[in-house]
Amino acid sequence: MDAIPLLTLKRLPKYLDVLNRFKKAGLKMVSATKIAVFTDVHMTQVRKDLSFTGVVGTPKIGHNIEQLIIAIENCLNWNDISSCFLVGVGHLGKALMGYQELHKKGLRIIAAFDTNPALSDTYYQGIPIHSMEKFSNLLSRLHVHIGILTVPADAAQGIADQMVENGVLAIWNFTPAKLILPEDIIIENVDMSSSLAVLSRRIAERLHIDKA
Amino acid sequence: MDAIPLLTLKRLPKYLDVLNRFKKAGLKMVSATKIAVFTDVHMTQVRKDLSFTGVVGTPKIGHNIEQLIIAIENCLNWNDISSCFLVGVGHLGKALMGYQELHKKGLRIIAAFDTNPALSDTYYQGIPIHSMEKFSNLLSRLHVHIGILTVPADAAQGIADQMVENGVLAIWNFTPAKLILPEDIIIENVDMSSSLAVLSRRIAERLHIDKA
Repeated sequence: MDAIPLLTLKRLPKYLDVLNRFKKAGLKMVSATKIAVFTDVHMTQVRKDLSFTGVVGTPKIGHNIEQLIIAIENCLNWNDISSCFLVGVGHLGKALMGYQELHKKGLRIIAAFDTNPALSDTYYQGIPIHSMEKFSNLLSRLHVHIGILTVPADAAQGIADQMVENGVLAIWNFTPAKLILPEDIIIENVDMSSSLAVLSRRIAERLHIDKA
Repeated sequence: MDAIPLLTLKRLPKYLDVLNRFKKAGLKMVSATKIAVFTDVHMTQVRKDLSFTGVVGTPKIGHNIEQLIIAIENCLNWNDISSCFLVGVGHLGKALMGYQELHKKGLRIIAAFDTNPALSDTYYQGIPIHSMEKFSNLLSRLHVHIGILTVPADAAQGIADQMVENGVLAIWNFTPAKLILPEDIIIENVDMSSSLAVLSRRIAERLHIDKA
């Protein structure tokens, strides 16, 4: 399985979103040009990105929408469901536990963990919540390879270390902590702080709030 | 107020995180070199980024941690609280309504909106939830400039249009939808689908799952 460039991977879900809308609207075929218009990505780039899925379009006719959807989903491995563990059942953890889209995108949270004893042995959205004491043992026993981190930043590194020691290969990190892990571990950060920094500063610049 | 480069803005919260940990540990002064080590950003870049905050370090002594924290927070406008509206009280919307960090980062959600009549005129985490009928009116009356979008992708563009018509200048978009809005509107996307695409594909490559 060849490595697909990072930016291509990040764009594929946008194409998928647009393709699913076309499908809903009853369309059968679509051109790269049309995908380009609806996603605001340059046509040449769309063609290049789609070439990674292995699907070849017909000149002047374009791509079969149904086939292209399946090809992109295969490419992203979204048709296989991978099991994962989530650590940190706070507001964000709960949001992910209830997020229906995860299933469509190949992830199933099979267990969650939290240090709060009141949460131990309860369920949220049908997902069991365990105490942290059971974490390492269950992780290695169930051969889970993906961990979701929704703990406070202070606790992130310690739990990430525990994950890696017990066989986790990829971490979806929702904390602002910069994780230091072996190079072969896949880390995907969803950094809301960075996003909020950009938003706050740009709006201040826009409103000409000047504190300098 | 001068525009700060995008990547600098995205790094400032990381420095802040590290500085707050140093402060907690009782340190008073810090060098750019030390910040570089803890954030994994090159020293030259750290210096450049910090120069945007207007704080000048002393050679061989470094920066006063307390002053640097205040300077970065001012830079990000995190010491001013901006009011915002949230639309879409699902799992993710609720997570943001309960996310204490928002206050520390200059945002206060003063009202939320949802199409579900069962939620109308209820409260979550002390924040009132209104029906969408009241949205435009309250938005323009309360002079709210920031909107948070946590609705399904299909509904995103319509609500974003309504936001902009009623004075919103910046949208924090948690949907996968690509919003088409006037150029001067600030859009900050938190794209979980892209992030999940990278994660899923990289793990499949790693586990040598081959569907080609």
